[in-house]
Amino acid sequence: MRRIRLDLSYDGSQFCGWQIQPQGRTVQNVVEQALRQLLKEALRVTASGRTDAGVHAECQVCHFDTQNQSIPPQRFAPALNGFLPPDIRVLKSELVTLEFHARFSATKRLYHYRFYPHPLVPPLWRNCCWGLRLPPMEDREALERLNELASLFVGRHDFTAFCSARDQNQSKIREVTKAHFFKQEPFWIFEIEGNAFLWNMVRCIVGTILEYFSHERGSEIIKELLDNGDRKGCGTTAPPRGLSLVKVEYGTKK
Amino acid sequence: MRRIRLDLSYDGSQFCGWQIQPQGRTVQNVVEQALRQLLKEALRVTASGRTDAGVHAECQVCHFDTQNQSIPPQRFAPALNGFLPPDIRVLKSELVTLEFHARFSATKRLYHYRFYPHPLVPPLWRNCCWGLRLPPMEDREALERLNELASLFVGRHDFTAFCSARDQNQSKIREVTKAHFFKQEPFWIFEIEGNAFLWNMVRCIVGTILEYFSHERGSEIIKELLDNGDRKGCGTTAPPRGLSLVKVEYGTKK
Repeated sequence: MRRIRLDLSYDGSQFCGWQIQPQGRTVQNVVEQALRQLLKEALRVTASGRTDAGVHAECQVCHFDTQNQSIPPQRFAPALNGFLPPDIRVLKSELVTLEFHARFSATKRLYHYRFYPHPLVPPLWRNCCWGLRLPPMEDREALERLNELASLFVGRHDFTAFCSARDQNQSKIREVTKAHFFKQEPFWIFEIEGNAFLWNMVRCIVGTILEYFSHERGSEIIKELLDNGDRKGCGTTAPPRGLSLVKVEYGTKK
Repeated sequence: MRRIRLDLSYDGSQFCGWQIQPQGRTVQNVVEQALRQLLKEALRVTASGRTDAGVHAECQVCHFDTQNQSIPPQRFAPALNGFLPPDIRVLKSELVTLEFHARFSATKRLYHYRFYPHPLVPPLWRNCCWGLRLPPMEDREALERLNELASLFVGRHDFTAFCSARDQNQSKIREVTKAHFFKQEPFWIFEIEGNAFLWNMVRCIVGTILEYFSHERGSEIIKELLDNGDRKGCGTTAPPRGLSLVKVEYGTKK
């Protein structure tokens, strides 16, 4: 048996998220179907984490085990792309040891949340960003203010207030290692990196930063939410279309 | 009778271009249908120029004449958006004089051609750029070389070699006022501005620059093509999905 790692990229707009569901088109389902066509084997694919309906991945990592011994590991990528629809591409495939686990071996995840600075988004970008009235891109003070609020999330915190009520993880403690805004014309991007994320955590954080961005007591309110875990104080969860999983990092062991 | 100017933005992926055709979904057709629903009047919409199938517009300008006297000019934009599909948005609507003509009054057009620097394009960007092996974004020399070739097109030239054989304009002389490359992560962008463009002109220029980019005699070949008008010497016409009409300028008269 061989374990193969796949680096995937997908446009989440037409998917009901990563995980297989009884109804609806999911990324996991489509990838497993392609593997079945290629290998004539029923397989399970495990990802670094689920992405929700409408959330994209510039690079998602997953693995699967196969009995097949003949296909060279690097050839899985182009072979699978022949069976996959255009909204999923395999960027890379490689052989890993059985110790490698796409989810449990991951040490860091990096997400981007993309904004368009006007509610009327050019249709070309309608599926990849959240359009809302933001300060003009040249406004240095606004950028500093956004980064000040973002920086409050960096560190080891209890993120109970910043996840879906349906998140089933026992511990809501996570470590955020980066959180800041930058401009990437024509967008604003919120970049966040952490060891792991709770359900809807990035979208809750984004919604809350924007909710309190122009509030005098913004910083204090966010600090309180991190302390008291009161979900009711959070801003509206930001829509999925602005969110992209950009990178998953693994320690030294593959 | 009033003349109304509309500033439109559209994702060209699902359109057979601007112009009404017996078969196929076109931008003009969809906009005229929305106007008919709104105004109960049969109308013709005139654009600054046609865009081909798959070509986008971040901002296309058009006008129409209506008997309607009751809708305030600025209200056409939100009212039409209610009837339009999500791949077209009206960014702005305004009253103009009957001297204003979206095509004939236009003094400048600005296009962007967007590249992704690898043939395997992340699916999120698959409809808005051309993926091909380009030098890394940090390569200053490559950027200078691209800009050197681009600059050859600036000025008043006979663009016979750089248009579709089906272009029916009698004169192929056009004036290009800007032509250069720049980086806009994760893309490279070729920006070109001119008084007017021939059929496929931008895509021919892009294809030719890339064809001769790494050719020792690149500059001389392009100069010869501008002199002799020999279409056979051009590179392959670049695919439509990378091209966007970004701006149309009008002189002082509106």
